[in-house]
Amino acid sequence: MKPTLHIIKVGGNIIDDADKLKSFLSDFSKLNGLKILVHGGGKLATQLANDMDVPQQMVDGRRITDAATLRIVTMVYAGWINKNIVATLNANQSPAIGITGADGEAILAHKRIHPNIDYGFVGDVDQVNTTLFSSLLEKELTIVVAPITQDKNGQLLNTNADTIAQEIAKAMSALYTTILIYSFEKKGVLRDLNDESSLIRTINKESYQTLKNENLIFAGMIPKLDNAFAAIGSGVRSVIIGDGMELSDLVNGTTGTTIQG
Amino acid sequence: MKPTLHIIKVGGNIIDDADKLKSFLSDFSKLNGLKILVHGGGKLATQLANDMDVPQQMVDGRRITDAATLRIVTMVYAGWINKNIVATLNANQSPAIGITGADGEAILAHKRIHPNIDYGFVGDVDQVNTTLFSSLLEKELTIVVAPITQDKNGQLLNTNADTIAQEIAKAMSALYTTILIYSFEKKGVLRDLNDESSLIRTINKESYQTLKNENLIFAGMIPKLDNAFAAIGSGVRSVIIGDGMELSDLVNGTTGTTIQG
Repeated sequence: MKPTLHIIKVGGNIIDDADKLKSFLSDFSKLNGLKILVHGGGKLATQLANDMDVPQQMVDGRRITDAATLRIVTMVYAGWINKNIVATLNANQSPAIGITGADGEAILAHKRIHPNIDYGFVGDVDQVNTTLFSSLLEKELTIVVAPITQDKNGQLLNTNADTIAQEIAKAMSALYTTILIYSFEKKGVLRDLNDESSLIRTINKESYQTLKNENLIFAGMIPKLDNAFAAIGSGVRSVIIGDGMELSDLVNGTTGTTIQG
Repeated sequence: MKPTLHIIKVGGNIIDDADKLKSFLSDFSKLNGLKILVHGGGKLATQLANDMDVPQQMVDGRRITDAATLRIVTMVYAGWINKNIVATLNANQSPAIGITGADGEAILAHKRIHPNIDYGFVGDVDQVNTTLFSSLLEKELTIVVAPITQDKNGQLLNTNADTIAQEIAKAMSALYTTILIYSFEKKGVLRDLNDESSLIRTINKESYQTLKNENLIFAGMIPKLDNAFAAIGSGVRSVIIGDGMELSDLVNGTTGTTIQG
């Protein structure tokens, strides 16, 4: 039987709030078993860009990453956020190592090619180095991944953290029973965005089709769910979406939305 | 016989100059065998502090590290500089992993205690995790170390890169034949600071005493040399001091100053 591996993405709403982050990392430290934490960047990069008078341009929620912005996100994500998370986990008796996709050639990417928009130094993932991830996990280290990758020419690339979590989960499914957890600011997938009691506890392929056909899911969730089913199609055991402040319940499956094949 | 390990410190004059750094990393990539690269920060941290209007205070060449400055040095050293070096080494076919002292609990430190000066978040090294360093070297990874450590409570600490290189070299001497190389902007130890032909090629304990007694060494080099002899007293095979732009010759011992017991 393959060992179980949890890949947990923690989002900006927790990263941005020191108290929430502390509480999240305390809960995270207590989870048993093998685990990988992928973090985003939250508002810190935008704040630093403001401090440095580097104008920021967003297209469809994605940051256009010019050279000055690449420097900022690398400093904030791989430097400040990643190392603080690692230091806190260590102090919580949960020894951790922080990496980007560049470290140990963990994640190879290429600069995004788009017919109309130049995203700048933004990466799309090509390959995950499962040997590296496994060898660090075997040392009983939690791996903390900052959303920066590199291409084969040594160019660093800003890369979406949700995508990184998904690509790691898919690749590691060859070696582990992988469970991918997206923590965000909602309880999970809701029928009514304004009513947390409308939480949908489980979704499978059949019920997803029905929910979509009957317009019972908030449109903004559709890309996340499509990605979740794509991950399951590539070997991920289940995807859980829910509130990062209830991490142990999410992992146990007693809250949030569990997506299964 | 123990395998040989080179621990190489690269200084600010190279880090600050993109062309020099590229050339240094190309030479570094070509060195055979096990290697650890420790980098400082150069002027980038000071530049960022200026951009962010964070006033910087230096005492005896050491940066007083308040909370805002700790954030800056962590972003610059562990983020921008470390990840660019790693990405460049990878592209040079020399797979690398970048760490701070926090990662994998590589280097434990404590906040500096000083009777008169509050250095702020500055660390003095207590312990090097040789198991972690060895395990990464065994994976045929070059380790790139940023000069940030942590204490046991999860506090990140700004730490002198020369000291980190020395402490790693000393600790790793239990497992490897260690050679510690300090690359800086001079050819090595000079009798006359303004005359590079006055390079002293080798110094041992006896000749050091003579050179000191006869005032034949620039005073500024004395602390570096005292540290070098302390490292040798703790098991380091030799310490080489010289110009980082001549790295392969330094490693071969055909230039620079070699200090031996």
